[in-house]
Amino acid sequence: MTSAPTDRFTAYDFLAARARIAGYIVGTPLIPFDVGDPRIDLRLKLENRQVTGAFKARGATNNIARLTDAERAAGVVATSSGNHGKALAWAAMEAGVKATIVMPANAYPNKIAACRELGATVVLSADRMQAEVDAAALVAKGLVPIHPYDADGTIEGAGTVGLDIADDWPEVEVVVIPVGGGGLAAGTSLALRRTLGDQVRCLGAEPDGAPSMSLGIEAGAPVVLDAINTEIQGLCPPESGARNIAVCRETLEGVARLSDTAILDAQRILVQGGEVVEPAGAAAVAAIREGHLEAWLAGRDADHPLRVVAVISGGNPAPDQLEQVRASIAAEA
Amino acid sequence: MTSAPTDRFTAYDFLAARARIAGYIVGTPLIPFDVGDPRIDLRLKLENRQVTGAFKARGATNNIARLTDAERAAGVVATSSGNHGKALAWAAMEAGVKATIVMPANAYPNKIAACRELGATVVLSADRMQAEVDAAALVAKGLVPIHPYDADGTIEGAGTVGLDIADDWPEVEVVVIPVGGGGLAAGTSLALRRTLGDQVRCLGAEPDGAPSMSLGIEAGAPVVLDAINTEIQGLCPPESGARNIAVCRETLEGVARLSDTAILDAQRILVQGGEVVEPAGAAAVAAIREGHLEAWLAGRDADHPLRVVAVISGGNPAPDQLEQVRASIAAEA
Repeated sequence: MTSAPTDRFTAYDFLAARARIAGYIVGTPLIPFDVGDPRIDLRLKLENRQVTGAFKARGATNNIARLTDAERAAGVVATSSGNHGKALAWAAMEAGVKATIVMPANAYPNKIAACRELGATVVLSADRMQAEVDAAALVAKGLVPIHPYDADGTIEGAGTVGLDIADDWPEVEVVVIPVGGGGLAAGTSLALRRTLGDQVRCLGAEPDGAPSMSLGIEAGAPVVLDAINTEIQGLCPPESGARNIAVCRETLEGVARLSDTAILDAQRILVQGGEVVEPAGAAAVAAIREGHLEAWLAGRDADHPLRVVAVISGGNPAPDQLEQVRASIAAEA
Repeated sequence: MTSAPTDRFTAYDFLAARARIAGYIVGTPLIPFDVGDPRIDLRLKLENRQVTGAFKARGATNNIARLTDAERAAGVVATSSGNHGKALAWAAMEAGVKATIVMPANAYPNKIAACRELGATVVLSADRMQAEVDAAALVAKGLVPIHPYDADGTIEGAGTVGLDIADDWPEVEVVVIPVGGGGLAAGTSLALRRTLGDQVRCLGAEPDGAPSMSLGIEAGAPVVLDAINTEIQGLCPPESGARNIAVCRETLEGVARLSDTAILDAQRILVQGGEVVEPAGAAAVAAIREGHLEAWLAGRDADHPLRVVAVISGGNPAPDQLEQVRASIAAEA
């Protein structure tokens, strides 16, 4: 029996996830966006317009839909300082399942409030490390853990983004995907391979200050980062998921490592273009603007542009950060 | 979000399992069999001719194929006195994964030998209860448990039997399925509903001396049997699985409760017909012979027979038991 990690997921696994979450999540739009290079026909997959403002709603809903009756009765728990927590709180509320989100005390107050408004019990822990310890204690008491990125149900849910792209634009040639824990990148890239085949090339995009996927692919296993040298929330878990690294090393052409400045600049042009996007959500556009597609642009021109999708993973910036971006745009105008 | 337990499994989940196990398991034949009633067009789904001699190879292979790299390295464990252990040992061997099978000391020596021949480590426990305790200790040490019937991967694997039937005979009207823990019944009946729709009626078949599915459906949850009053190995776990009860109460028209004599008589006619079948494997044929299809036979005749499949779940009788059956057939001839 072959042991390729990609063989664990068939096209049917992603289709099953899509069937389970249909009617709950949004079939987000794929819209053209002028990135200022005539050789590139760019479209944005707008998961910032997803329910709860991020692709995370897909995996959360898929996980909740697969709970057994006993698990539904026990309730679910996750650690999160951001989009996964909000998505899980929402999906659990929709299903009448009790959710507990364990958050570090320094999480943004609006994220904490969002989880509470969605009916979740929020446990505040001293820091991220303590949050993991506190969540483990709740799992020991019987709550069902829903991992933010390193779980099959999460990856399959995220992979429905890839199915959407394949349906809406089967002629796509390159898909660029933000990478933190790697669930979105693993799911989307593998769903694209299973539907459109190997001719679709996928590229990851991660902060240079937290290159957990680059290092994980190099090592063939999760590498715990010595330090997190980036401010891009959502793309800097202490390590990428083992499941995701195993998939991504086969499905990604590479991972673009990006400065915070490049990512924030990309956020700025997306906000300028009318999209509410958090910095992490702009990483794919940053990779394109920073020249990471250059190798595939030979011979391309305005008449024969490279067909590229940038996945915009989320649209939940901290309110003050978004205000700063908007003020800076206004000041320049 | 709806909470129907059947919604947890889409057609795609069964198709995904089939894609994962293709090339390892056998597409077993569906053959006509004369049950002596002209109103019934009976075909047998011969899982006794499956690899390892039972449908269990399907779920075992699907579970093994879904292991992560870390889980493969850790190895798997299951309690079993029979077909699940043999199937798991085989699937693990095929994949280069270490398997430990915890068996009660009174398991048939040929079953113990079969697991060992397939490279598994066999742990012998005093009895079935102790086997569960010993297996739990191995899980605590990091081994990955593979449940014989109450796990999604097991149910999805078993459900590929239903896909096979739907492919080979889409005109089928009734499918009769042996029930012990209920994985085969849940998977097969739900895969049939997902592919052929509600017009296919499914009937379970269990020993009257261990009616764990009848009682479970009635109670809406697993019921631990006070006593096991049957000799039909493989159809008498102490309780049916919670997942399977939740599905079967929606997908089965009912569960025929059968005497050991009726099941052994059915085994006899199958052996006489040339099939090596263990008693449990003959339960569906016993249900048909005992008149449990009568309600659906109104207006049927030789020109318009009811199209029925009996799932023959396994073909690993104890050698002395099979010898007795053959001797009795020879004595009568």
